[in-house]
Amino acid sequence: MASVDVGIGLLGYGTVGSAVNRLLVESADEIERATGHRLRVVRALVRDPGKERRFPAGDGVLTHEFAELRDDPDVHVVAEVMGGVQPAGDYVRELLRAGKPVVSANKQLIARDGAELFATASASGVQLRFEASVCAAIPVVKVLRESLVVSNVHRVLGIVNGTTNFMLSHMERGGSYQDALAEAQALGYAEADPTDDVSGADAAAKMAILATVAFGSRVRYEDVECRGIEELEPAHVAAASDLGFAIRLVGIATLAGDAVDVRVQPALVDRRHPLAAVDGAFNAVMLQGDHIREITLEGPGAGGVETASAVVADLVSVVGTSGTGFLQNDACWRELDRLPPAEWRSPFYVHLEVSDRPGVLAHAASRLAAHDVSVAQLVQRPREGAATLELVLHDAPLGEVSAALRELAAFPEVLRPPFLLPVVTERGL
Amino acid sequence: MASVDVGIGLLGYGTVGSAVNRLLVESADEIERATGHRLRVVRALVRDPGKERRFPAGDGVLTHEFAELRDDPDVHVVAEVMGGVQPAGDYVRELLRAGKPVVSANKQLIARDGAELFATASASGVQLRFEASVCAAIPVVKVLRESLVVSNVHRVLGIVNGTTNFMLSHMERGGSYQDALAEAQALGYAEADPTDDVSGADAAAKMAILATVAFGSRVRYEDVECRGIEELEPAHVAAASDLGFAIRLVGIATLAGDAVDVRVQPALVDRRHPLAAVDGAFNAVMLQGDHIREITLEGPGAGGVETASAVVADLVSVVGTSGTGFLQNDACWRELDRLPPAEWRSPFYVHLEVSDRPGVLAHAASRLAAHDVSVAQLVQRPREGAATLELVLHDAPLGEVSAALRELAAFPEVLRPPFLLPVVTERGL
Repeated sequence: MASVDVGIGLLGYGTVGSAVNRLLVESADEIERATGHRLRVVRALVRDPGKERRFPAGDGVLTHEFAELRDDPDVHVVAEVMGGVQPAGDYVRELLRAGKPVVSANKQLIARDGAELFATASASGVQLRFEASVCAAIPVVKVLRESLVVSNVHRVLGIVNGTTNFMLSHMERGGSYQDALAEAQALGYAEADPTDDVSGADAAAKMAILATVAFGSRVRYEDVECRGIEELEPAHVAAASDLGFAIRLVGIATLAGDAVDVRVQPALVDRRHPLAAVDGAFNAVMLQGDHIREITLEGPGAGGVETASAVVADLVSVVGTSGTGFLQNDACWRELDRLPPAEWRSPFYVHLEVSDRPGVLAHAASRLAAHDVSVAQLVQRPREGAATLELVLHDAPLGEVSAALRELAAFPEVLRPPFLLPVVTERGL
Repeated sequence: MASVDVGIGLLGYGTVGSAVNRLLVESADEIERATGHRLRVVRALVRDPGKERRFPAGDGVLTHEFAELRDDPDVHVVAEVMGGVQPAGDYVRELLRAGKPVVSANKQLIARDGAELFATASASGVQLRFEASVCAAIPVVKVLRESLVVSNVHRVLGIVNGTTNFMLSHMERGGSYQDALAEAQALGYAEADPTDDVSGADAAAKMAILATVAFGSRVRYEDVECRGIEELEPAHVAAASDLGFAIRLVGIATLAGDAVDVRVQPALVDRRHPLAAVDGAFNAVMLQGDHIREITLEGPGAGGVETASAVVADLVSVVGTSGTGFLQNDACWRELDRLPPAEWRSPFYVHLEVSDRPGVLAHAASRLAAHDVSVAQLVQRPREGAATLELVLHDAPLGEVSAALRELAAFPEVLRPPFLLPVVTERGL
């Protein structure tokens, strides 16, 4: 038997887990060149060891007893690729306590229980890495933690959910929300139950993790303002397009002074902005900081083998840096306040449906002006006896814009509640 | 005095060197959090220690004696930020032999003398890192070496020279080559002597380094097929634009079987391709591989503080991984052949000027067909009694296309030598 000096345990042996095993087998030489060690899966926890597998594990590797993996002295590092907050969370905690480094691909677990898990890892003096939990193969966690150490990143803009990005691109070409969802499901981009994607929950977990790493202050899943794409209508997409914008589900994390704002919501993105060009189910993350201006990473944000490649990169990093001072556990070192949402600033887009009577426009303009909000672009169109107003507003605090719209909504000429989205135009150049 | 546990030496204290010192001072806490160490510049080699500096070094730090830096026991790691192949190369060699790890921002040195320098580093058991030598703040070397260990990257496409990218964007809006150069010089993007940029030499050094790291086989500066942008005319840019393409100076590194091809040359880039959207003086590198499909990194590829931020990231990585198995020296582990240029495949663009006589088109078509080259797009236009033919050819070996064009050029109807550029369309999706 070949010498095996680093034994790997897997929690889960589904699409990602079996791909991790395959990559470790097929790339054993590359990994040995990079780290000086050979890595091999020696244990994998599964529900049913008898089930047929895409890439079979070796004899005796599969087990349904967690204790067998935890207590195996040949398991040196564990990859958690089972998903779900429980029992994955308990397993990871126990492994860290037992002194085994863990790499996790589980965004919901890291975004919800990160504080406690990282504290456990630090107490045991072992690493907990999580590259694969955000945007699969795109190495944004490593870049933030190792390459941008001195960059003081103050803004993270991301398209971090491929399903909704695909659906919105599809709606732009004229499809309805239902068409777009059906197409995404047919191509395997969306699950039978697409709630996690279309509600923004998946993107919110990723943005919580990215904001935590970028700003060094804990942002939990619950801290993310989140709005999905379910209420978007083809008319919104068409109106945005007329104004020169695409609608995308955008994650925006902002460090404003000593406060943090993290949100996921549909936004109008300037057609010339790089995020508008992100293709179909791809993801992109743009990092803006003091000494780097703006660095963008784009790539496949989902997929079994893409996620597995990030898991393997983390395993390689654990093996390649163990025993050094290179901190790879909790990225948090400070506690920043949450920015009051009303103080969050952005340019905005407003869609208003009004009765076509004199004075409505003047009225809208005066309400905005009273809150010091100025209009960058305006298009008025007739619509079945009434009229629509499309407004692009200059950068202003969300609170002022919302107040003006509340006042407007109270007037009988305004037929439906105003529809408000942020606009992405500025670049960090 | 505060405890200093890692002393840094600088070779050079110009724009980049003083920015490195500033970042180390301003971000000492961030670095200590990431590595457990405090880093401080204790020696910097300069020609004139009396000269005024943008960010002053501490008392007694500047020296014009190399031996003082090399022999100082408080210098633990050295950053080479002086540029030029000599004497920088001798200094780096001596430092490595003296057991001091080095990080270098010097693309010409790494691309020319890499083999010997990495061998020296390995013999001494110290690290030689070079993130800042390619595309400044964009962390493409770390991503290739640590995140994409198992990705089998087989193609690297890059816009790795900001000066020419800015100039070509400018020409696209109607300017001449001379206008574009003057504008780039006025904005500080181009040097008084722009030869290194416009000839492609700067881009070729970067592509040599990227190909070496991506493919694990040495590619020297001299191995890169290189063609600059000097011969481009506004007419070429306009013709490309009519066909739906931008012209960009593109670096293309290809792993084809067991052979490597690396080239830098103007190419037609499909308007919908992400590289066509790279803004002004920015750089972008696209990595295509087996398990990642395609990952693109975009950001500022030049600038003093941007380069310094990559130097500091390398210093942090040296300190954060010293004593581990994480190989950070020579990326080469095999010797691949150079692909015979005639076998390099690509779609191509051809601009032909012909006399406006019957049969010319048929003749061109039959020459191409004789070499199994097929035409994807063709536009014929009258031009002062003659005609121009713009052809976009399907993917074909360069040798066959060149042979067909040589045969065509021999005919009296062809008024000028055909003008040939590769075309970038395919993505790794």
